[in-house]
Amino acid sequence: MKVEVITTGTELLLGEIINTNFTYLAQELNARGFDVLYQTTVGDNPERMEDVLKIAASRADIVITSGGLGPTRGDITKELVAKYCGVDLLMDLAVWSHIHTLLSKRNICIAENNDKQAMVPSGAIVLHNEVGTAPGLVLEHGKNMFVMLPGPPFELKYVCEHELFPFLEKRFAGNGIIKSHTLKLRGIGESNVAELLDDIITHQSNPTIALYARHGDILVRLTAKAATAEEADELIAGMQEKVETVIGSYVYGYDEDTLPEVLGKELLAQQKTIAFAESCTGGLVSSLMTDVPGSSEYLMGSVISYTNEVKKQVIHVNKTLLDKKGAVSEEVALEMARGVREVIGADLGVSVTGLAGPGGGTRRKPVGLVYIAVADEYGEACRKFNFAGARTQIKLRAAMAALGFALDRLKENCIEKKSEEISNDHEADR
Amino acid sequence: MKVEVITTGTELLLGEIINTNFTYLAQELNARGFDVLYQTTVGDNPERMEDVLKIAASRADIVITSGGLGPTRGDITKELVAKYCGVDLLMDLAVWSHIHTLLSKRNICIAENNDKQAMVPSGAIVLHNEVGTAPGLVLEHGKNMFVMLPGPPFELKYVCEHELFPFLEKRFAGNGIIKSHTLKLRGIGESNVAELLDDIITHQSNPTIALYARHGDILVRLTAKAATAEEADELIAGMQEKVETVIGSYVYGYDEDTLPEVLGKELLAQQKTIAFAESCTGGLVSSLMTDVPGSSEYLMGSVISYTNEVKKQVIHVNKTLLDKKGAVSEEVALEMARGVREVIGADLGVSVTGLAGPGGGTRRKPVGLVYIAVADEYGEACRKFNFAGARTQIKLRAAMAALGFALDRLKENCIEKKSEEISNDHEADR
Repeated sequence: MKVEVITTGTELLLGEIINTNFTYLAQELNARGFDVLYQTTVGDNPERMEDVLKIAASRADIVITSGGLGPTRGDITKELVAKYCGVDLLMDLAVWSHIHTLLSKRNICIAENNDKQAMVPSGAIVLHNEVGTAPGLVLEHGKNMFVMLPGPPFELKYVCEHELFPFLEKRFAGNGIIKSHTLKLRGIGESNVAELLDDIITHQSNPTIALYARHGDILVRLTAKAATAEEADELIAGMQEKVETVIGSYVYGYDEDTLPEVLGKELLAQQKTIAFAESCTGGLVSSLMTDVPGSSEYLMGSVISYTNEVKKQVIHVNKTLLDKKGAVSEEVALEMARGVREVIGADLGVSVTGLAGPGGGTRRKPVGLVYIAVADEYGEACRKFNFAGARTQIKLRAAMAALGFALDRLKENCIEKKSEEISNDHEADR
Repeated sequence: MKVEVITTGTELLLGEIINTNFTYLAQELNARGFDVLYQTTVGDNPERMEDVLKIAASRADIVITSGGLGPTRGDITKELVAKYCGVDLLMDLAVWSHIHTLLSKRNICIAENNDKQAMVPSGAIVLHNEVGTAPGLVLEHGKNMFVMLPGPPFELKYVCEHELFPFLEKRFAGNGIIKSHTLKLRGIGESNVAELLDDIITHQSNPTIALYARHGDILVRLTAKAATAEEADELIAGMQEKVETVIGSYVYGYDEDTLPEVLGKELLAQQKTIAFAESCTGGLVSSLMTDVPGSSEYLMGSVISYTNEVKKQVIHVNKTLLDKKGAVSEEVALEMARGVREVIGADLGVSVTGLAGPGGGTRRKPVGLVYIAVADEYGEACRKFNFAGARTQIKLRAAMAALGFALDRLKENCIEKKSEEISNDHEADR
């Protein structure tokens, strides 16, 4: 099934908003086996919109529009699709009643033009929009199916998930499906992953493999085409096993997993608490951790020791050491980790100290140099990094590295503890 | 001049990347008086791309493509535009030499297909791409001008700023220009701004006024059309005066200004330092502050007091008070501000305590309830907020409110100090 998506709205053509509606639709439709071949943006101009609709209908089977379903005179999508299909607009009482209930709940006076939103092309299927006043609509005409969706992203997603996608899946059953599964990696660069997976990537066919770097993560996405979801899952599982044989040690999670979430779960599982001493990341590590609901169960607190004074007075970094080695050094990173662990009273103390730039770098200590240390009941360790990029990129990369280091440390200790227990058991056996 | 932008690439149609190239081009072209009327996305398929080029040439004067100029066989833009215009591709020695210099600088072996990138349609103007191997190209044919730009956003922007925009401005001088100026507001909601500006918005013509809410800021954008930049500036200045008479007290900056930057500048100007005690924002306030280069000059450090233990032990919040009033209370907010000011040794101590949700809310203390306090040499003050939204939105809104409160406090004290000085001067006069 060939699909064209038409996104309407002057604010798109002015560059005032980014077209996230199309990105969402493209992802979701491709994943369901539809071929999205064209996307067009056009303004609220009747002649141009009519023209764009005609072209789309001639080259695609399914034409999906977003926007232009509002109550104002500038909203013309429904009217023009009905005109193209040669049908009238009729008042739909169920839609009318939903609009009135919704607006009175929100204490909004019902304006005359709200009735316009209850007009539906004759013969169209209504896709109920629980979260807004503009319903989605499906109108079939000859070889074409027209799908009209509301423009606000929140409403568009609601209508797609609850109404459109279930409808399309039923209507085009046997269309085959495409499923994706994403492996999330840390502690390795994109080019190194590409090198390690070179052989597998060269010989890929179904599933396909794609690499991305996003928000400090490396993503490996496996995409399989198959007749059924089960078949696709099997194909993906086979490929995942192959891939993980090579790079499995770098995989920290899958699909929607985030590193702060995975670390949080590990802390909860091991019943450990954590505290951060942040210098160059300036609060970003803690902020990422606290984006996760329920993080107060394991994140006790942090100290952002941006100046040497704070390092000395609040987390007790040794003055002589600080003067001798400098704030960006392995020794100070270790002191910070120890200090914050003690001051906050957490099981793990994690520190980050480095140069985020753009100024302040020297030949011996260049911008991007970052030390990250962890202190816990088993002792302490430090890692040295050289990150590239602008200030905020270095902050993000350092933050992700700190979270990754903490996760590694937790897992290592867990394994050590288990093997200790096992060897203790063995000793007891003797 | 009617413009159509064609963005090419399968990764766009798969929803793997968001079309930021178009948003950038739309903003910049509209600002220069070009009417961007259509945007089309198409994959790397020759027949479909050829078709899209033909349609674009028929309905627009200027057709701008992005992508498809790379060295691989899938890169077909240049070839198809040349075919449409009936011209040959010729080797351009200047481009060839630039590619070879660039690749050898990067220690990349020059592959045969890199020579493909040095082929230029006969009669085309080359837009030099200093930062990549694919140059931009301008080819005029009949009533149409075809502009081909490289796909990577960084390269596209470079070629536009350094080559394309100066070229277009010269070629279409007298086209008129559009200029925008944005006022950035805080401490007021979008609907309140709309209400206050209702009369001005109703009677707008040139400049036009538009309101937006973005990243916790409210933006008021004034856009003027005029023959010259000076004329546009005058129109904007007149409107800005009108607008600021009504809402001037909420304006903290203009255009690219950010609240952390403006607060940083104020701190520097007054030679004051700052420290934060963050509870529900979990490090976000400090992270936003430290995104600004040079912030170590005024941000001394922060304490993220996520648990009551940390509140008591690290920033000395009174235990009885904490038990009696609860962590989310005016009293505790004030203690936190005082405590962090003292512990860190900063001029201003700013605290944030609240409920970011989704869990933990009660009828008396619902999710979104946030107290923000400031302590300084003049005393202390607290503000109470009720923010709506999901967890990360509440965090962001609370963080922006904290930065705004600190800025207000600095400015008030500055005025008080000045008026004190003035009254002292008067006393001395007597």
